[in-house]
Amino acid sequence: VNVVKLVRDVQVKSIEQTLKHAEKYLGDICSLLAAYTRKTAKLRDKADLLVVQLFDFSRTEDPELQISLKNLAEDLAMVQDYRQAQVERLETRVVAPLKAYGDIVKNKRAELKNLSTDLNKELKELQKLDKLRVRNPADRQSIAEVNVQKSSHNAQRSIRQLEDSITDFQRQKLDDIKKIFTDFITVEMLFHAKALEVYTHTYHNLEEMNPQKDLEVAYASDTAGNSTSHYAGSVLASPKSQSLRTTMMSTAAQNHRLQRSQYPITAQRVSPNETFHRTEA
Amino acid sequence: VNVVKLVRDVQVKSIEQTLKHAEKYLGDICSLLAAYTRKTAKLRDKADLLVVQLFDFSRTEDPELQISLKNLAEDLAMVQDYRQAQVERLETRVVAPLKAYGDIVKNKRAELKNLSTDLNKELKELQKLDKLRVRNPADRQSIAEVNVQKSSHNAQRSIRQLEDSITDFQRQKLDDIKKIFTDFITVEMLFHAKALEVYTHTYHNLEEMNPQKDLEVAYASDTAGNSTSHYAGSVLASPKSQSLRTTMMSTAAQNHRLQRSQYPITAQRVSPNETFHRTEA
Repeated sequence: VNVVKLVRDVQVKSIEQTLKHAEKYLGDICSLLAAYTRKTAKLRDKADLLVVQLFDFSRTEDPELQISLKNLAEDLAMVQDYRQAQVERLETRVVAPLKAYGDIVKNKRAELKNLSTDLNKELKELQKLDKLRVRNPADRQSIAEVNVQKSSHNAQRSIRQLEDSITDFQRQKLDDIKKIFTDFITVEMLFHAKALEVYTHTYHNLEEMNPQKDLEVAYASDTAGNSTSHYAGSVLASPKSQSLRTTMMSTAAQNHRLQRSQYPITAQRVSPNETFHRTEA
Repeated sequence: VNVVKLVRDVQVKSIEQTLKHAEKYLGDICSLLAAYTRKTAKLRDKADLLVVQLFDFSRTEDPELQISLKNLAEDLAMVQDYRQAQVERLETRVVAPLKAYGDIVKNKRAELKNLSTDLNKELKELQKLDKLRVRNPADRQSIAEVNVQKSSHNAQRSIRQLEDSITDFQRQKLDDIKKIFTDFITVEMLFHAKALEVYTHTYHNLEEMNPQKDLEVAYASDTAGNSTSHYAGSVLASPKSQSLRTTMMSTAAQNHRLQRSQYPITAQRVSPNETFHRTEA
């Protein structure tokens, strides 16, 4: 019985160690995954600001770039929506169940303490009966023998409960760890897959952007003196919606008619119906 | 010529506005993308800490979970390597070229100022010659007419240079924006694709993890009194590597041989060659 008590003490300490390990490592991992989730949310915040800025920027630009920037901003916003879903899922499916381990360990510890107290009592009872038997070796079929049987039965039941309890804890821990990290990987994969899908679309949109179109628009409104583009509007706006070159032309034409040879060749940049200034000149 | 000057003033202001816009928006977008890159680096840092913690945790666990946690930690570390590549690429291919726009705008501004100064001189010269012509209307074929021609030519050349300069700037800006954002999307896609690839592998690894194996190992060493697993080592270690139940059994057997009926049925949990305790009993 003394050996039993010694082993039990060691075992109870070992169980305590198991719980302490689970508490420490799962606690630390929980904190780090919570921090990971927070950093992901901060990344989303920065990307959201970028979306706003891209929309602002798009409004000051010509149609081609404007559409491209708007598409880019919309796609970037969509990825941030997926990142938001990622953050929420990480919180509910990864961080929360890990956080729950604090209480699970606490409850398990209380449970084990109760079982350990029961076992202590039962072992003390056994020890008492043992001493009784040593003093009365002849009294083998006495009432004490029945009590030994009963106490031994109780002690073994408590030990079984103790072991089952820690086995249950280990089983739950293993299942939970498997589930939590599978969920973590699933949440991450889902986000990466969605981001990849959206950005593939964005990539093709950007590939189709033709900066030359905006330059033509700017140039056309420049030579035509008729602005529809924002760029031309902001860069070349004049009280008469005429470019400096066009004004210079008219003034020069009225005064000296010298401009013919100096007129820049822009035919290759403007569309046929915008070249009337050149033919006029 | 006065109309020309007015238009020129408006145009120079418009060009200034274009440069200011580019400076402001590209500058803000640069700052936000730099912040986005920094937050990505911080996310990598947190994930790196998680990797270390998972490795630490794995060392305290049984073979099955130990291997799963190690695989998970290694895969997570690999994704962080890709994230590091992402951060470096964002810095060199997105943030740096956007940052360069500060200097590009500054240089362009200096260039336009010089061209504007030249144009001012030429327009003043034209104005002077105009007045001369008004005072001497008969002197049409004089040397003044040649000077008017020359000054007008110079002024037009300056205007052309001014317009070419801003067109060049717009062309470079459009090409650069297209390239920078295409690079941004490419860098992001590359990372998401790699992360998805690694995590798909991780997911299958986790799926294959069988928690039951670790419970069997723990149980086997429990009933066999022969610990090879870390879990059994920490939870059930005793001076004789025997579990409390095994010790209890022997003690009880020596004293009372009462244990037969109370011995827990564990056959379904242990492998056949580990059941000798039960048959022994």
